[in-house]
Amino acid sequence: MSTNEKQGVLLLSGGLDSATVAAMAQADGWTLHALSFDYGQKQRVELERARDLAAQYRLRSHTVFKVDLGQFGQSALTDDAIEVPKDRDLAAIGEGIPSTYVPARNTVFLSLGLALAESLSVRHLFIGVNALDYSGYPDCRPDFIRAFERLANAGTRAADGGAPYQVHAPLLELTKAQIIEAGLKLGVDYGLTRSCYEVDQDGTSCGQCDACVLRLAAFETLGQRDPIPYR
Amino acid sequence: MSTNEKQGVLLLSGGLDSATVAAMAQADGWTLHALSFDYGQKQRVELERARDLAAQYRLRSHTVFKVDLGQFGQSALTDDAIEVPKDRDLAAIGEGIPSTYVPARNTVFLSLGLALAESLSVRHLFIGVNALDYSGYPDCRPDFIRAFERLANAGTRAADGGAPYQVHAPLLELTKAQIIEAGLKLGVDYGLTRSCYEVDQDGTSCGQCDACVLRLAAFETLGQRDPIPYR
Repeated sequence: MSTNEKQGVLLLSGGLDSATVAAMAQADGWTLHALSFDYGQKQRVELERARDLAAQYRLRSHTVFKVDLGQFGQSALTDDAIEVPKDRDLAAIGEGIPSTYVPARNTVFLSLGLALAESLSVRHLFIGVNALDYSGYPDCRPDFIRAFERLANAGTRAADGGAPYQVHAPLLELTKAQIIEAGLKLGVDYGLTRSCYEVDQDGTSCGQCDACVLRLAAFETLGQRDPIPYR
Repeated sequence: MSTNEKQGVLLLSGGLDSATVAAMAQADGWTLHALSFDYGQKQRVELERARDLAAQYRLRSHTVFKVDLGQFGQSALTDDAIEVPKDRDLAAIGEGIPSTYVPARNTVFLSLGLALAESLSVRHLFIGVNALDYSGYPDCRPDFIRAFERLANAGTRAADGGAPYQVHAPLLELTKAQIIEAGLKLGVDYGLTRSCYEVDQDGTSCGQCDACVLRLAAFETLGQRDPIPYR
């Protein structure tokens, strides 16, 4: 089966990272099919942000896929009873796995991305994980990305020949400041993105969760103003 | 975090294979949490079979998880417009990947099994794939199972220490006849299972699809009668 060579499936969250990946990939000539997940996250604003970003970038398609990981619980992002860590300094963030980790989330998301990609005869997946200035999640590390690539090539039609799957994670080794810097050069409108783990329905961010702390510190490093509203 | 050592998550389809795995694992002293998928399959009878099997085996829990792979199309199991192959002989079955292959299905199912397992602090997954007398699916082969195990250990809390994940696929190297023989010794009631790709709502199987052909041939090899109704 021939594949659509310069097309990719992009996991689009509505956050800063995947918005930057979209801009990078398009600058490199990729046509993108975006995939977002309604996974039971409390911060529903993410999905609105993803829709606006997909429209602004004129992505080839945008699918919002329902997969209720909240059913399994065990994460502060899906369960009101579990607290989101607040006001941690940069040194503490990334040490150990925090309560905002959602069990196997990126494994599930990439698997569904793979299912969509195989359905479209597309062999490229794009994901905005990064392993520096991140929240300590195991499913954002280089080992994980390489392991998923091997899995994709063992468990699909690719196992029986043809072009192999590639997982593109262009932010993997960048700091958050480097990511934003790259995005600003490409004209990314970060006002359309949200990162906060406890963002209000009107889009106002808390400024205190790990995601906000990392984002704000990165804009500060660059001497730039983060264009989104904070409480 | 301590893990629940002799507990496992079982992917339970309502078919012959996973029913046999349930019996094998229980005979070995495992406590099982079953996970079935409402993935947009046309053969809804599967889920009833899975529920009955979970009840008969008194499994610790049974979750039916909705993940609509039918949304992505491209499989005869989810799309009425794609034909299920009929009356193929055993030599033809398993050669090449048939139209009943669902893109990345077992990758998605194992990923969700992993999410449930991690939520339960369980490090063992059980899946009834087999690579002999099977339908040619790439996600039923030893390479795939090993690749998933590596992924699980790279992308979860297991990456930061503690017991590693293990994927148990005890049927991997068995023929269909050997699977049924083992199950009959353990008292599996195959009358509760269905394998057919085009099973009727009342549970009657077609006898002509690859799954029926493999199943019927295996019972015949054993000189046993398949207890389920055929058209």
